[in-house]
Amino acid sequence: MQTTVVTARLAEAAALLVRLMPGRPAFAAHAGVLLTADDDGIELAATDGELTARVRVPGFGHEPGAALVSRRGFAATTAAIDSAEIRLMAEGSRLAVRTPNARFALPLLDRVGYTPPAQPPAVVGTIDGGLLRSAAVPVAGAASQKDALPIFTAVRVRSEGDRLELVATDRFRMAMAAPAWSPAAPAGVDALVPAGFLAEAARQAAGSGDVAIHADGDRFGFSFGGISVFGHVLAQAFPDDQVRRLFLAEPEAEAGLDAGELAGAVERAALYAGARGRVSLQLGGGVIMVRGSDEQAGESEESVKATVRGGLISRTYQARYLLDALRGFTGGPVVLRMQAGIRPTVFARPEGADPRELRYLVVPLRLARDE
Amino acid sequence: MQTTVVTARLAEAAALLVRLMPGRPAFAAHAGVLLTADDDGIELAATDGELTARVRVPGFGHEPGAALVSRRGFAATTAAIDSAEIRLMAEGSRLAVRTPNARFALPLLDRVGYTPPAQPPAVVGTIDGGLLRSAAVPVAGAASQKDALPIFTAVRVRSEGDRLELVATDRFRMAMAAPAWSPAAPAGVDALVPAGFLAEAARQAAGSGDVAIHADGDRFGFSFGGISVFGHVLAQAFPDDQVRRLFLAEPEAEAGLDAGELAGAVERAALYAGARGRVSLQLGGGVIMVRGSDEQAGESEESVKATVRGGLISRTYQARYLLDALRGFTGGPVVLRMQAGIRPTVFARPEGADPRELRYLVVPLRLARDE
Repeated sequence: MQTTVVTARLAEAAALLVRLMPGRPAFAAHAGVLLTADDDGIELAATDGELTARVRVPGFGHEPGAALVSRRGFAATTAAIDSAEIRLMAEGSRLAVRTPNARFALPLLDRVGYTPPAQPPAVVGTIDGGLLRSAAVPVAGAASQKDALPIFTAVRVRSEGDRLELVATDRFRMAMAAPAWSPAAPAGVDALVPAGFLAEAARQAAGSGDVAIHADGDRFGFSFGGISVFGHVLAQAFPDDQVRRLFLAEPEAEAGLDAGELAGAVERAALYAGARGRVSLQLGGGVIMVRGSDEQAGESEESVKATVRGGLISRTYQARYLLDALRGFTGGPVVLRMQAGIRPTVFARPEGADPRELRYLVVPLRLARDE
Repeated sequence: MQTTVVTARLAEAAALLVRLMPGRPAFAAHAGVLLTADDDGIELAATDGELTARVRVPGFGHEPGAALVSRRGFAATTAAIDSAEIRLMAEGSRLAVRTPNARFALPLLDRVGYTPPAQPPAVVGTIDGGLLRSAAVPVAGAASQKDALPIFTAVRVRSEGDRLELVATDRFRMAMAAPAWSPAAPAGVDALVPAGFLAEAARQAAGSGDVAIHADGDRFGFSFGGISVFGHVLAQAFPDDQVRRLFLAEPEAEAGLDAGELAGAVERAALYAGARGRVSLQLGGGVIMVRGSDEQAGESEESVKATVRGGLISRTYQARYLLDALRGFTGGPVVLRMQAGIRPTVFARPEGADPRELRYLVVPLRLARDE
């Protein structure tokens, strides 16, 4: 194996694989990157048996071949080199990364028991990269990062005609989006996708125009601009109908305002919310009144102008859930709909103003008598 | 107490006090900021019995008075407010921070047993702020952050005529600088100053032209642009003469090159240095050869062009000590002088090229036979 590549492009590809793949796998070869050189360049691929990522980098191939080396070591080396081009060469038990005045020799990893990265499943449709990101990232943020039950760590991805529905919940809040996509296969998509993977892949895809969606019964993923990333889906049933009913709000009062302004006020109130992190919102009198209170921290009260419909009504929330909800709407208006008792409050853009159709539910806190 | 102040200036002053003062003192009032309002503005002061910092902020005083509140709470609140001006008002057991549409009420801290911040000691001379920073920060970096022996956590500050000598060591490396200053009192300075305090205060002073140096037998500090910061010195003897002798190098070989280029090569070699973090430098043949090697990580070898005098010679170092040493010379040339055996290697700018007169010693590693 021998190939000459532009350092910056190789470093970018190597860093992408490090970001996309989980941190410290138990099996050493799963921490590797498989480099496969041909006449036109090199492919970097990584897999841990669950998730697979592939990135192609153009180059000038002198001698085809393959090498499996540490992903982190390769990424750190290519990122640190300041020569414009580097040459990759297999040299005995090493992959040498060479510049005119330096040689970095990475040990080849043991490939016994290693199954090379798979090919992606078939393309089932396409979606705009920017739209995918703006829908998938806030929805994935509503999933739990460490719940014992897998469905609370995943995003439900299901196609309904020309809409791609994304839903996630950790029980305390729930998010749903339904961006447009272009189906290319009648089967569509019906999958439960790990939330962290979906969010990171969508972030990477954001700069690409058309992103291809790949799926079969067991796997789900994307490809865009020489990159493909896909993994196994979770084999669990998701309560689609129950979830959909939760989004049918019967508001007692609603308020429309700039999402960023409300988020700023909630952040300031959170400074006064103490360890419990509770912030209350009161609708009425043409404002949302945002309050925090804690024995140690003190008290805060701030009014933010809003278009309010319905009676005077107040709810208390975990500040960080409010901020997560509002983050999905920053840079534009948001409408809050408060419901009876502790039924969830719905956050959405004004009707018809959101190509993502993002809606976010936050469950208010049940307060003890003396609070 | 009632005062109107420009939010940004108040937030900056509050943040400065949080940075300058230690984190979590045992006594609650020591985590406070004492706000003292008069006709022309407000003074923010903090002390923990050891260290004292004072910052003056101009404002429009309506009613003089004082309030002691949480330093972190006050800094976080003023930083988060986006109104241009705020009003501070004493309201019963609270200090209210008010904007046109918000009120943030910080509880007053208990002042029982609290000794208000002291006044600084007398001025003994002045130094240029930029020069102070460029000398004090690299020297303070050679002190230990957690050694059991206080002298290894401090910077020796001693005036010698029109030079202010700064020295620090943690046993494994040592740094010395001797920038020019303008003495204003015959006693001069003779102090052992906590390194963390010196570095942070020098960073803050960097933007000011003339920085006044304050000292008496027990305390040392600076004042600049409405800010004063000073603290108790360590009551320990420093082995001045022994230290000075260490800097009298008898080089076996020396090399001159760009400090940043060598630092880059050392950083890359450190990727191949494994957990022990050892990197070797070999002088000879018009280059410095930089090498790292580790069973897991692999091997690296990089040559950096240099002006070398003396025979082929090689030494091994802790990579992070090399990088600390080189950081003090980034943006210009550095000369390395290697001495016999494990006598320290000296890093300095070429003769006469450094108004700070910074010199840095790093002790090479004693290697076992098989290395």
